[in-house]
Amino acid sequence: MPVDAAPTFDLTFQRVVPVTAAQLWQGWTHAPTLMKWFTPAPWKTIDAEIDPRPGGIFRTVMRGPNGEAGGGGVGCVLEAVPNRRFVWTTALGPGYRPNPVAEGGFHFTGILEFEPVAGGAMGAGGGTGGTLYRATGRHATQADADQHAAMGFEVGWGLALDQLVALFA
Amino acid sequence: MPVDAAPTFDLTFQRVVPVTAAQLWQGWTHAPTLMKWFTPAPWKTIDAEIDPRPGGIFRTVMRGPNGEAGGGGVGCVLEAVPNRRFVWTTALGPGYRPNPVAEGGFHFTGILEFEPVAGGAMGAGGGTGGTLYRATGRHATQADADQHAAMGFEVGWGLALDQLVALFA
Repeated sequence: MPVDAAPTFDLTFQRVVPVTAAQLWQGWTHAPTLMKWFTPAPWKTIDAEIDPRPGGIFRTVMRGPNGEAGGGGVGCVLEAVPNRRFVWTTALGPGYRPNPVAEGGFHFTGILEFEPVAGGAMGAGGGTGGTLYRATGRHATQADADQHAAMGFEVGWGLALDQLVALFA
Repeated sequence: MPVDAAPTFDLTFQRVVPVTAAQLWQGWTHAPTLMKWFTPAPWKTIDAEIDPRPGGIFRTVMRGPNGEAGGGGVGCVLEAVPNRRFVWTTALGPGYRPNPVAEGGFHFTGILEFEPVAGGAMGAGGGTGGTLYRATGRHATQADADQHAAMGFEVGWGLALDQLVALFA
């Protein structure tokens, strides 16, 4: 389901993937790895800087197939629990400095949760059942959540996740 | 100095006060205590809710001497290191949900640091030299910092600190 009950203004999706929680953690917190999967092709993440600790920077730069600028920006890490949970927001920059809102834009907080799944027949994941990957985009208002959904939150983050899984296949 | 070098957009002041770091911590993180000092008289903080852990609520409600509403709001705790450091922001609400910016308003992050001072002739502070209290308001832009300074950041936060110290005198 792309949109939770109205009072939460969250977009979320989850999927069990055949990689380990440590690999998902590496994908989200190691900049050279993140650059390989973070943006659905043919767009690319051409630069990234990630300091995975509270108050640290989460910066990405994206480019389209014809060199178009768009997406990315300078955010702030809020929680970093290795191999389990990674939270960052566009509402703040490094050192928790508030970020202005771009004209016509919106802020969101990204909450990534990685939960090992016991047993099962998945082909990877260190012989376990893989890892439950849950991504949540948390917004200030329903209008912001709707705008993010219309931009393709679920499809875009899902395609990017496919690329992350493929890195470790 | 009320304003740091331009690139930081910070307002900050510090003072050695004759109370302990634990008392400053209590003042900032225990809602019933905070209500007694947080707003320079004759304004009052008539309600408060504080969950001093990352992602927790920092909510205050202020009223003027004639019952005027103003100030306060629902913010988010970012760091909570007992007796040492307390960070919260107006840019997020509890659970790190981004907050909209009020018309004509601005967001800021408050950074409170408490550092015990060795020895000295202060009258309190558990027989030590008191505690260095440092308060920083971190802003998105110079205009926001200027607006906060014009609202009396340094005087207001200083008067409030006087009230906090008086609680434990």
